[in-house]
Amino acid sequence: MVKKKINLKTSNLWKKAKKIIPGGNMLLSKRPEMFLPNKWPAYFSRSKGCFVWDLDNKKYIDVSLMGVGTNILGYANSLIDKKVKEVIKKGNLTTLNCPEEVELAKKLVHMHPWSGMAKFARTGGEACSIAIRISRAYSKKEIVLACGYHGWHDWYLASNLKNKKNLNKHLLNKTAIKGVPKNLRNTIKLFEYNKLNDFKEIIKNNKNISTVIMEVSRNFSPTKNFLEEIRRITLQKKIVLIFDECTSGFRETFGGLHKKYKVYPDIALYGKALGNGYPITAIVGKKKIMQSAQNTFISSTFWTDRVGPTAALATLDRMKKLRSWVTITAKGKKIKEAWRKIFEKYNLEAEITGINALPVFKFLSNRHLEYKTFITREMLKKGYLASNTIYLSTSHTDKILKNYLKTFELVIKKLIIQKNKKKLVDKVCHSEMRRLN
Amino acid sequence: MVKKKINLKTSNLWKKAKKIIPGGNMLLSKRPEMFLPNKWPAYFSRSKGCFVWDLDNKKYIDVSLMGVGTNILGYANSLIDKKVKEVIKKGNLTTLNCPEEVELAKKLVHMHPWSGMAKFARTGGEACSIAIRISRAYSKKEIVLACGYHGWHDWYLASNLKNKKNLNKHLLNKTAIKGVPKNLRNTIKLFEYNKLNDFKEIIKNNKNISTVIMEVSRNFSPTKNFLEEIRRITLQKKIVLIFDECTSGFRETFGGLHKKYKVYPDIALYGKALGNGYPITAIVGKKKIMQSAQNTFISSTFWTDRVGPTAALATLDRMKKLRSWVTITAKGKKIKEAWRKIFEKYNLEAEITGINALPVFKFLSNRHLEYKTFITREMLKKGYLASNTIYLSTSHTDKILKNYLKTFELVIKKLIIQKNKKKLVDKVCHSEMRRLN
Repeated sequence: MVKKKINLKTSNLWKKAKKIIPGGNMLLSKRPEMFLPNKWPAYFSRSKGCFVWDLDNKKYIDVSLMGVGTNILGYANSLIDKKVKEVIKKGNLTTLNCPEEVELAKKLVHMHPWSGMAKFARTGGEACSIAIRISRAYSKKEIVLACGYHGWHDWYLASNLKNKKNLNKHLLNKTAIKGVPKNLRNTIKLFEYNKLNDFKEIIKNNKNISTVIMEVSRNFSPTKNFLEEIRRITLQKKIVLIFDECTSGFRETFGGLHKKYKVYPDIALYGKALGNGYPITAIVGKKKIMQSAQNTFISSTFWTDRVGPTAALATLDRMKKLRSWVTITAKGKKIKEAWRKIFEKYNLEAEITGINALPVFKFLSNRHLEYKTFITREMLKKGYLASNTIYLSTSHTDKILKNYLKTFELVIKKLIIQKNKKKLVDKVCHSEMRRLN
Repeated sequence: MVKKKINLKTSNLWKKAKKIIPGGNMLLSKRPEMFLPNKWPAYFSRSKGCFVWDLDNKKYIDVSLMGVGTNILGYANSLIDKKVKEVIKKGNLTTLNCPEEVELAKKLVHMHPWSGMAKFARTGGEACSIAIRISRAYSKKEIVLACGYHGWHDWYLASNLKNKKNLNKHLLNKTAIKGVPKNLRNTIKLFEYNKLNDFKEIIKNNKNISTVIMEVSRNFSPTKNFLEEIRRITLQKKIVLIFDECTSGFRETFGGLHKKYKVYPDIALYGKALGNGYPITAIVGKKKIMQSAQNTFISSTFWTDRVGPTAALATLDRMKKLRSWVTITAKGKKIKEAWRKIFEKYNLEAEITGINALPVFKFLSNRHLEYKTFITREMLKKGYLASNTIYLSTSHTDKILKNYLKTFELVIKKLIIQKNKKKLVDKVCHSEMRRLN
């Protein structure tokens, strides 16, 4: 009898998917090719905490993306789900509005005394586009100055119209942007993180700058005065400053990395972890700016869904109670230290970056992606979803992380033994999004 | 003792909301001012079938928007909700993908033999923007030719850049579009429904047309050959034809009005009723066109949520089993006939339009909005959420509709008696979106 291939259902479905869904799924970062081509389990049947089961009922421990940062409180968190199920029983959507959205706006505005109003959407890309529209409407100017990754919409991808390498350091190498209107070419400029002089130069040479949109911190901490200077200059020039805190909002602080640095934007964006896996994103801003939403048309039926704000309210409550940002920061710090020791022990040159609750390593070698793929393959054999990034969650117990690190060291040991092989892996994984590098 | 004002909690919350959310909510069509300023119950606490309870626990029968067309199977449908709760228990979102999205793609492609691929988003605006991006990427041309309402994004609102009245007949009178980049001014043109000669003229005068996007039918049926000619010309000129079936997709047929007219697009868009109140929208298209999504960046974390496709699968199953489109079409037809008789009896000149499952009346009088507000006010007193539009659902039983019509006639009678009053209502409702006129 032929031995049944382990991931049969799971891998077959991915093959089918690519035939009827362009690219196979809805998010680039969740394509198996980003991890381990042909072998990464593309689908889950169920999940709990940091455990995930594929369609063949094989169990994995997720020490990788945790939903790409959506589940700080773990998968299928029963406290959040209970609240969601309660509103489902009462109806998710009617001709009338749900009161939860007002409560959520109140909570977010209260969390940010510099702000006065909030608006909600269901995806991060939408949140960015709404903020840009409001900001342009308010400033009556058009040019956006951007740093980092802010979604798939025309206003942002227009960055690559002049030069197809422009987004290399912010999104992907040679990001394809077919279908973005060419006339948008002069509506956006990019600046690199921590390059204050470049930023100042662009500001000096452009009078029509409406908005600066950036992440407070990505892989590196801000250099001295970088954020302060950007705030000072944008205030002076009456440029709207947007902090995209979709990823960073609840990882190191309760409400955004800008709280840590005490630099306050005009608009802040939240998503990802806000609803612990349920779609909800928020635009929080100063009243006089947010009111400009009234001079333009921004409206969508499914932004009135009740599950989103309900999940967000429950998630915020629970995060606050657990002080989850403290917990996951401590866990991530330990991971970083352990990685460093392991790499040192085995003489592997690697750079460890990212905020503590979202540590990332990168081999300082042109074989980085190959090594990474090898690690993913070997970790998978041991039952781990693992790559070079961990979005820590409260469900990553000390025991789980200890075992992960033990296995990780064994895999690194194996890598050292095998690394002079000509072909370390069948197929190297695709290059990561820059933001995760 | 002072008598407690009935809608205290509900109306107070709306006042608070307007202070912390621009416009007070997320969807223009759900603002109380669109129905009965200061008196319309802005919020619901629970719902079931076509019943809605406000925050003061006052019960209403919804014979108006039914979630703006989202709930063909009624509010809090236990069959759909059961499936949703099952996947919530198993986890809504992980690092891996959910298999339900592949099943949904398969189902939608099977439903449309002219198509080959599908992609999902969570709002209608997103679905339209994705389709436009894909279409521009495929055609390598930029100009969009649009008819009707297609969301809030830049590509569409750019219609009003040249003339602020352009969108009057498609969206709202003098739609405000502050913050839309001016350079988009030549990327979109509008054409009026059933004006084939105008359409042909625009096509003749523009070589760079990428896409035609339109609803198959809005308030009026297509005139002879209108759709067929648009299809013939777009094929001939290699222009991508998109049918936006977000509203019409499941009201008269199972899968779109284009099935009725046997005119097939290159891409069709679905939303609203697709998930019976849960956010899910779909882009269904020909394979060669949809594959252009691979030449551009279209990706979002929350498009991988599991509730959306699960709700859609359950909704499609249930609609098919009930043949809900037949049921609601028959119900709507009866409503239209009854309205006609009542208006005739009381000598009120009114136009009754819309597809049968979504009947709309409009008084042929410059006091239309005033009359409409009066009707809403009086119907509300009797416990009905009612205006001049009914999105029929399977939960509107014959008995409910019979009682509604009885009450409606009494209100019309009252209108006739009072209509010569100088001030029929305190405050007239805001003008509807054109699509609902």
